[in-house]
This record gives sequence, structure tokens and C-alpha cells, in this order.
Amino acid sequence: DVAAPALPSAAHAVHTPLGVREVRLTDGPLASWQSLNASATLPHCIEQIEEWGILDNLRRVIGESGAEFRGFWFADSDLYKVIEAVAWEIARTGTTEFDAWLDDVIGLVARVQEPSGYVHSWIQGVHPELKFVQLELTHEMYVLGHMIQAAVALDRANGRDDLLVLARRFADLLDRRFGPGREQGICGHPEIETALVELYRHTGEERYLALAAHMVELRGQGLLKVGGLGARYFQDHAPVREARDAVGHAVRQLYLNAGVTDVYLEQGDATLLAAMDAQWSSAHERKMYLSGAFGSRHRDEAFGDDYELPSERAYAETCATIADIHWTWRMLLAGGAAGAATYAETIEREIHNALAASIDGGGTRFFYSNPLQQRPDRYSEENAPRERTPWYVCACCPPNIGRTVAQLGAYVASTTADALWLHQLAAAEIDLPADLGEAVVRVTTAYPADGRVEVSVHGHVRDGVRLAVRVPSWSPDAELTSRADGGSGAARADADGYARLPLVDGARYTLSLDLTPRLTRAHHRVDAVRGCLAVERGPVVHCVEQADLPDGVAVDDLVLLPEQGIDVADDGTLTVHCALVDRPDTLYSGAAAPVATEGSPSLDVAAIPFATWGNRSPGAMRVWLPVDR
Amino acid sequence: DVAAPALPSAAHAVHTPLGVREVRLTDGPLASWQSLNASATLPHCIEQIEEWGILDNLRRVIGESGAEFRGFWFADSDLYKVIEAVAWEIARTGTTEFDAWLDDVIGLVARVQEPSGYVHSWIQGVHPELKFVQLELTHEMYVLGHMIQAAVALDRANGRDDLLVLARRFADLLDRRFGPGREQGICGHPEIETALVELYRHTGEERYLALAAHMVELRGQGLLKVGGLGARYFQDHAPVREARDAVGHAVRQLYLNAGVTDVYLEQGDATLLAAMDAQWSSAHERKMYLSGAFGSRHRDEAFGDDYELPSERAYAETCATIADIHWTWRMLLAGGAAGAATYAETIEREIHNALAASIDGGGTRFFYSNPLQQRPDRYSEENAPRERTPWYVCACCPPNIGRTVAQLGAYVASTTADALWLHQLAAAEIDLPADLGEAVVRVTTAYPADGRVEVSVHGHVRDGVRLAVRVPSWSPDAELTSRADGGSGAARADADGYARLPLVDGARYTLSLDLTPRLTRAHHRVDAVRGCLAVERGPVVHCVEQADLPDGVAVDDLVLLPEQGIDVADDGTLTVHCALVDRPDTLYSGAAAPVATEGSPSLDVAAIPFATWGNRSPGAMRVWLPVDR
Repeated sequence: DVAAPALPSAAHAVHTPLGVREVRLTDGPLASWQSLNASATLPHCIEQIEEWGILDNLRRVIGESGAEFRGFWFADSDLYKVIEAVAWEIARTGTTEFDAWLDDVIGLVARVQEPSGYVHSWIQGVHPELKFVQLELTHEMYVLGHMIQAAVALDRANGRDDLLVLARRFADLLDRRFGPGREQGICGHPEIETALVELYRHTGEERYLALAAHMVELRGQGLLKVGGLGARYFQDHAPVREARDAVGHAVRQLYLNAGVTDVYLEQGDATLLAAMDAQWSSAHERKMYLSGAFGSRHRDEAFGDDYELPSERAYAETCATIADIHWTWRMLLAGGAAGAATYAETIEREIHNALAASIDGGGTRFFYSNPLQQRPDRYSEENAPRERTPWYVCACCPPNIGRTVAQLGAYVASTTADALWLHQLAAAEIDLPADLGEAVVRVTTAYPADGRVEVSVHGHVRDGVRLAVRVPSWSPDAELTSRADGGSGAARADADGYARLPLVDGARYTLSLDLTPRLTRAHHRVDAVRGCLAVERGPVVHCVEQADLPDGVAVDDLVLLPEQGIDVADDGTLTVHCALVDRPDTLYSGAAAPVATEGSPSLDVAAIPFATWGNRSPGAMRVWLPVDR
Repeated sequence: DVAAPALPSAAHAVHTPLGVREVRLTDGPLASWQSLNASATLPHCIEQIEEWGILDNLRRVIGESGAEFRGFWFADSDLYKVIEAVAWEIARTGTTEFDAWLDDVIGLVARVQEPSGYVHSWIQGVHPELKFVQLELTHEMYVLGHMIQAAVALDRANGRDDLLVLARRFADLLDRRFGPGREQGICGHPEIETALVELYRHTGEERYLALAAHMVELRGQGLLKVGGLGARYFQDHAPVREARDAVGHAVRQLYLNAGVTDVYLEQGDATLLAAMDAQWSSAHERKMYLSGAFGSRHRDEAFGDDYELPSERAYAETCATIADIHWTWRMLLAGGAAGAATYAETIEREIHNALAASIDGGGTRFFYSNPLQQRPDRYSEENAPRERTPWYVCACCPPNIGRTVAQLGAYVASTTADALWLHQLAAAEIDLPADLGEAVVRVTTAYPADGRVEVSVHGHVRDGVRLAVRVPSWSPDAELTSRADGGSGAARADADGYARLPLVDGARYTLSLDLTPRLTRAHHRVDAVRGCLAVERGPVVHCVEQADLPDGVAVDDLVLLPEQGIDVADDGTLTVHCALVDRPDTLYSGAAAPVATEGSPSLDVAAIPFATWGNRSPGAMRVWLPVDR
């Protein structure tokens, strides 16, 4: 069986995904990250959910703990996300080290589950009177959604189906109560929709798909008692086909969109895909941070207006980036209007920047909010601390990172009837699915540190199958070349952004990407970074951090001198050249007042990958560097 | 008796205020605004507080209403602010039209007040068990503060002291419970401190000053159970002498500072004034919007970091500007380090821009939040709607505007031992206080529409008394001239920003200010408006509004062409010249990508006073205009 998070079963999918066993990341930053995830992040998460009372919340329902309920009403979801993370790790490596823990926690869930199938520790243990009566707030379906995703992952990982049995019971209860033609109800936090579709895919049970599709149809009908947060916060302000703009709570919008796209993938209603195309354009062409983050506003953890993308107040929740990876991958599978290369490049931007920045070098400290600028006097706020922290009261992000890192292999490649597609350029071994042959495709590369990507094929490949390698938009002229017994070949990217050559046993392919550092600017309506440029190299966004500056030089006084270029050292570190502004000091002054950079010596400043900031000291940082004096 | 909001009684005050009867605004925008306030805003407020249940909240405590409690726990404060607004209107004009209403509502308060002196409709009527036990949340002292301010204003207005009797009873209760040496308690929302000092000034009762000073000392000791909002939100993170930066909830910080400055004015502790000097610098030199607004963050309605001043997400609460007028005026009276001219020019900026923008042309619709930019797709949020609205559930701002407009005369002038100071340049008649002579000083001007300010003196003036007229920093070379029987004179501003000439009966003075429109830029650390300039003329900040643009031209695509200057029409309207950006369309692109303004025809665009925006249609608006292409 294929172990991947999204396995469309209908013919509406354009691409067929590969699983984490078929795509084995062997080397480079993604593989290293998976190792760190397994050795540090997952054990840390397991420890933290015990320490923060997440398991006691369940135990107390059945008298196995005398502790008070702790955390948020959706705290159970943290457990399910950790289980899911462990499941993908099992799927990826076959490890058995988590089995005893799984026995323990799944056994606990089984004991807490009511005969009806219901299990939700906050409702059962604190507010039983609220069962299914405050769907806008209680997150009951959201929690079930994560339970389902964990259960499906575990069964796909190694056929362990005990959690799946429990999840199906709960899902069956939901269907009996809220299925088509019964009581109308949707969750205040989307997530159940994508989970139910996956449960349908995994079990073949049509009721789950019908329930998901029904919930998608019910959204935007005003079913939720939205209160002061307003309907947009919950994406309940308009039916999904009419809601063209990404608005409200960013994670909610993006999980919802994953679910809607999943429903499209199974049912093929083109009006849903059209709505998702519009949503994708809104979220990515007008509301996405350069780092691949979403949600400009602390207030309501929400999307801002078009082009409202402040660096310093970027809320940019880690979970929003993760939700977008889920959704954007499904758009790729669905053949959405933006095109596979754009979807894949977006996922690449997210993985290497916003997602990577959310975790420290040790794998046990996390950002919830991922701003693109930190002021020197920045003070920590809840969910937006000055530096990464081991856990959060609202702990959605850390285990979400864990499950996403463990499943990264699933976003690397896909197949169509006559091609193997390489979407992410990462060192990997890929087993060709049986319909294309019986071969291992090896990708060797130090990307993104190095621009050379090599691919070799070992085994039988069906005639007519091609290798389609994504050529990033920042290196459009890169050529894919091949050498094989039958001769050599070369191809540049087609209009869709993929370079194609026949996939042949024994052939060796090379793609050489231009990693010359680039200066990037934002659309003129992005006021927050007007007069600034950002340094990018390959898919990696860079930043300047106080820790690299001499005493007395402040990050916020730097002015980039773009005409002096960007130096690349042998080890790949980048150096930019800056002047310093030191007057005027007044907050407002006449336009003609002089600005003192002219006398400033040029200062060499390290531009480090954004993902690595804050690993030395929690000082000032900025991605966008002023060029305007 | 002098009817002014702050009447220092000790010798620590450098300036002596004049009251609203001594300074009568006779013409021009401030006088017109006071008329509108009296005829429209105050009746509207009286109607709204009835409609929104504010009076029923009190009636229900004593069985005079069967309604549910409505609004916030501090809803009583809305009533007291409306009473205070009415009081200043009575003080200003002697009107009797509100007397019956005052009889009614003060009688109601008297009936609700407990024998102990306690009166707070939410505690009494909803949560009596919380009396004085959750000071961080209940706003009991805050409500009392507004009761005191209203009571003092009413007694100063026409000697009506019935509310004063009630307020003193409550204040005495507070002193018995929380006075020095007794239970320690401070309010979660500062306001009581400045009110108690004024009650001391008005009654001579030292206990009120001692209680205020005690509460100032207790702040920053961790008395408040701050919860998730954190101590900074409540300014309880550090003692007032150590808290040099304006942080947390902006209105709280600024009301607190008014109270601390009041305590300094009565007790003369120089360490308090030094702390206020540092606070004033923080709030005004690093955290003030060009419009004279405060509080960059929607989250927690809070001050941001230094230079964090986003235009589009400016929270910029109306009440914060009002609180700052209160505080800054007290800093002027105290002779704070920034100097009288800077304080007065700040108040001028606030009155003519942030405060004036908070109300519509009809006087009955209000902004709570006053951003400096509105995007075309901006969606209304609670307390931050797209357009002015008649009232708010949290209705702190509208009555606060009412009381501030009615008391504007009190901020126009002051005296010292040998001078009459004109801080605000507004058409007015000013009665010289007895220690300087017995004369009327008439100020005639159409300022800020016109730069000519004329002053004439009618009556006896003591020998040696001088007229000190503030010369705005944007017209530093303006000369104050005089013609009198004894000869003429001329003076430019001294180093402190005031031009001085002898004040002589029969003399006529003229100050001619340069109202050439100016282009202003912000400090280079204000990322939000980098590469932008703002148009100012005199004290008036201008903006560009969608309603003035031709179809198909969007505010956010304008690029100012500063080299083409600013046209001033005979009626004072300003026109700027802009190009249009129409590409690239992508959110992020290479720095070298072309920007299409070159072919754009120059477009004439009206720059209207910021205070008047949103009176036609709730479209896009911006104060800061890009010049960077």
C-alpha cells in the first residue's frame, strides 16, 4: 500500500502521488531534518503532551487521573497529531520504537471512547452538556479530523488499525447525526472535511465522502453562531463557490480549502475547482509572505487585505504554512489553474523558509508566529515570542511540524500515465510504481546548497515513460541533459515549467541550476516593504541578523547597496554590502532634510538563510533590506 | 471660578490654565466644531446611551427596569462622560437645556448608590460578589474616575454639586478601603489617578491626592492578576519611575501618564517628571502617528515597538489621542523637558487630525480606530469599521469626543506671572486673569485655512506683561509684529518657540504664518511608510481618497511626483501630481523587472484634509503617498 497523506481515488486527479516508502529522502537538508524530527522532535512532542496534561485530560474522564483539565478544548488534537507524526515516521523507516507508546495512548483513547463512538476529553470531562451544541467553538469535528488523519496514517504505515476502528466509530456517529438529510452542522474549525475524504479513500466507505461534501455545501449558510469574531473568521460568510478571497482565520481557510479540493478530486465538480483556483490566487498572489507564510494579522490570526503584508507584525502561523502545503499539494494533484510547477515551487518556498524557520537547530524549540522582521525592542506575546520556545499552551504547531516533516517524501514526486515527475529537488531514492516499470530512480544533489541535480535510473522502465523535472522559475534556462547507452539528450523546460526526457534504464540525467543570489522586490502595493529588496538564493530566502553585526550597528539602520552585488563564499554563505543611516533622528521631518548615508563606509553584512535565524541570540532580524535612503 | 479640566494648585506648575469661560472660541473650525458638538453630538450621545441600555443598567439595580444588563462592565462610564461633556458645554455657554436631563440621570445615580457610597451597575446588578475583588477587570475605579471628572466639571461649570456629593461618597469609600496603609489595590484601567488629583484640587481634601499618589506608587508591583494579557498591557510590569517606554494598551498608558503628571504637579517629585519626560519621548518621538494618533496594534489595542507605525493597521484609537491631549497639556503645565511649544504643537496636531477625523461632518458618526490608510477591500472589524458609525458596543470614544470638544477652549492659552501665552492659534476672546490686568484679548484668524493671526487688546494690562505667541515649527521665520499708540514692535520666536512682545491696551498684533504645503517623510526605521511622503499644510495632514479619483484609477497605484509641486487653490484645496503604476502584477519579482510609470500621464489628484476623509463614500484612502517606483 502507498503511504501518503492524500491518495485520490477518482479519475479527476491529474497526478498520482507516491508514498513515503516509495520516495526515500537519502541526503541533504530534508533528509537531515527527518532524522532530527525522529530523534529529537517526536520524542520531545511525546514528552511534552504528557507534561502539559494532554493525556491526563483523557485519563481523568475515566477516573485514571485526578488532575484538572488543562489546555484548550481542542487539546486532544495535539495527541492525534503526534500519533500521526509517529505514523509517518513508521511508514518512512519501519521503526518500532514508538509501538509501546502507541499501545498506551491508543488504549487510553479506546477506554475513553463512549459506546456511541464519541471521544473528546474536554466535552466528556468538563462540559458534557455542550456535546454537539456549540460547533462553532468546541472543535469536536476538528479533533475527530485529526484522529482520522492519524488513524489513516497508522494503517497506511504498517497496517495497524486499532485507532482506525476508533476513528471510524466516531465518524459513523458524526454521520448518523449530521449526515445529509439529518441535523445540519459544520465545525467552527475546518479540518474534518479533508480528513473525511481521506477516510473514504482509505476505507471505500461512501458515507464519509458524502458527509464531507455535505459539510462543504453547508459552509457559508450562516449555520455557525459566529459572535464577535464575525462570519469571515470562520469562512461562514459565503458559500465556498462564492468565497473567492482568502479571509478570516488563516489556518481555518487553508484547511477548508484542502477539504474542498479533496471533495473536488473525488466528485469532479468543476465549480469547486474554479473556486479553489480563485482562492489559491488570492492567498498566493496577493496575501503570501515571501517566506511562504500566511496570515498578516495577530488579531484573529487572520488574512489581511490584499497586499497587506507587514514584516514585523506578520502573524504567519506555522500551521498556516503547513495547511497550505496540504492544500497546494492537492491543487497540484487536481491540476489546478496555476500549474504544477507553480504549486511545487510554492511548496518548496514553504518548506525551505517558513516551515524550516519554525523549528530550531536542535529540533525541540518552535516558533508559532514567523515574522519577517524583529525589532530590537520586540517584546514576547502569547504565540508570538521573541525566540523559539519548547511548547505552547495552544500547541497546534509543534506536532504539526512533526507530522509534516515525517511526510515530506510524499511531496517530492508524482506520476502520470507516462511520466515520473520530480517536483522537489532533493536527494532521494524513488521506486517507480508498477504501471511505469520496475526501477529505482536515484536523485543525487546537495541542493539547495548546490545547483547540480543528478538523476540515475536502475531497472526496467516501460516504453514511452518520461522523466519530468521541475525547472525553478528563477533558473528558467537550466537544461536537463541525459547520457545513456542509446545516446544523449537535452531539454529545457516546457511551457509548464518541467523539462522532459525519456526515462531509460541506466540513463544519467543532470540539471544544473543557476544559484546566483537574486534581489527580489515586492508588488508596489505591498506598502510594508516598499523601497526594500530581499536576498534569495535558489529557493532560500535570506535575512540579516543582529548577531552578525558589529557592536553599535543596528539591523534597522542598514541600507543595502545593491550595485555592490552579493558575494558567495565557497561554503555558500552570502555577504551583502550596506551603508548605515544615522540621521535625521526625528520621527517626522521635511522631505528635503538630508539623510546621512553618504559618508558611511560600506559594511559587509552576512545574509543568512531565514530558516536559521534566532539560533544564536533573540535579537533584531530583517528579511527585507531598505535600498531607499 | 475657573472652569478648566486641570487646575494645578501647587507651585510646581509652570503655567496657569485658563477656563472655557475665559477663553471663548468665537469663529473658525474649533468654534464650529463646538457648535456642532452642542447641537448634534451631545443630543446624539444622550439618545444613544438611553437606546443602548446604559441608563437601564442603573435602573434595573433598583427595580426601575426589567431589562437585562447590556454592554460592558464599565458601561456606567459612558453616562459619566456624557454628563461631563454636557458640563463643559454648560461651562462654556451657560446653556440650561440639559438641566432636566441632568436632574434625571443624577437622581438615578443617587438612587442606585449604596449607603456606603458604592455605585457600579454591573457589579451591583450582575456580579455583586465581585465587588473590589477583580480590580484588573471590573473597572470599578475607572468608572469612579469618570464620575469624579463629570462631577468636578459640573461644579466648575455652574456650581451644581449634586453629582459631586455622590462622587465624593464613592471616593471616600475607596479611600477607606484602599487608602495608604490599608488594602493595596489599583485599577486595571488607569483613570482614577488623574480624577482623584482633580478632586483634591477642587475640594482641597488631601486624602484624595494621597490616594492617587499611593496608587501611582503601587503600579508596577505586580498587584494585578494580569493573566494572558500580560503585565505590560496594564502598565503593571514596572514601577512608573522605571517604565520609560510607552507600552501595552495605549489608552491605559496615556491616562496613567496624565495621572502621574498630575501627582507630580501637586507634590513636585522630580523623579516622576523625569519618568514622564522619558515616557513622552517614547510615545511621541518613536510611537506617534503623523495624525497624532497612538497604538499601532489591534491586538491588545496596544503600542507597538519603536517605529512600528503601520498605516493600514493603525489601531489609533480615538480615546488614545484624547488621553494624550490630557497628558500632554499637563506636561505643558508642568514645564516638561520637551518644551511648551512642542507640547502645544502636538496637541494642535492631535486636534486637527486624529481627533477631528474621528467624527463625521454631521457630528453623529464616529471612528473608534483611525488608520492612515484604507485598502479598497478593507472589511469592517469590531471597533474598526470601514466607515464611521453612530455608536459602538464599547462606546468609550463618542462621549469622550463630546467632552473633549466642549473643553477645547481650555487648551488654547495659559498664563505665567508676566505673560499671556497663546498655544493654539484660534479665533477667540480671552479674558485676562486678574493678576495680569483687566482686559479682553481678541484673536482673529481663519487659521488653519489662512496663516494670518491677529490679536488685539482691549482694557487694562499690568505693566511688564507680555504676549507670547507660539510660532509653529513649520514656519520658524514668522514674525510677530505690533502696532500701538506707543509705537510698533516686532519679534521672532525665541529659542522656546514663542514670539514675545509687550501686551499693551489698544495694541494690535499680527503673526503671518507660511502655509505653503509641505512634503513630510518619516524616520528611516518606520518601515511602513518607507519611500513615501505625506502632504501637510500648516497643522493639517492631508490624504488622497478614492472618491476624488477617476474611474479605473486606484489610490494604491498612485505614485507622487514631488518635483511637480503642490497646487493651492484660492479656497485652500490642494492638488498633487501623480503617475500611475500598472505593472508588474506579480507579488514578487526580480529587482530589475521594469515598473511601468514612465508612460503614465501626470494625474492631478486632490489632497483633502485627513480629518474629512470618509464623508462621501467608504473607499480607499491613504495619507502616505509613494514616491519610490
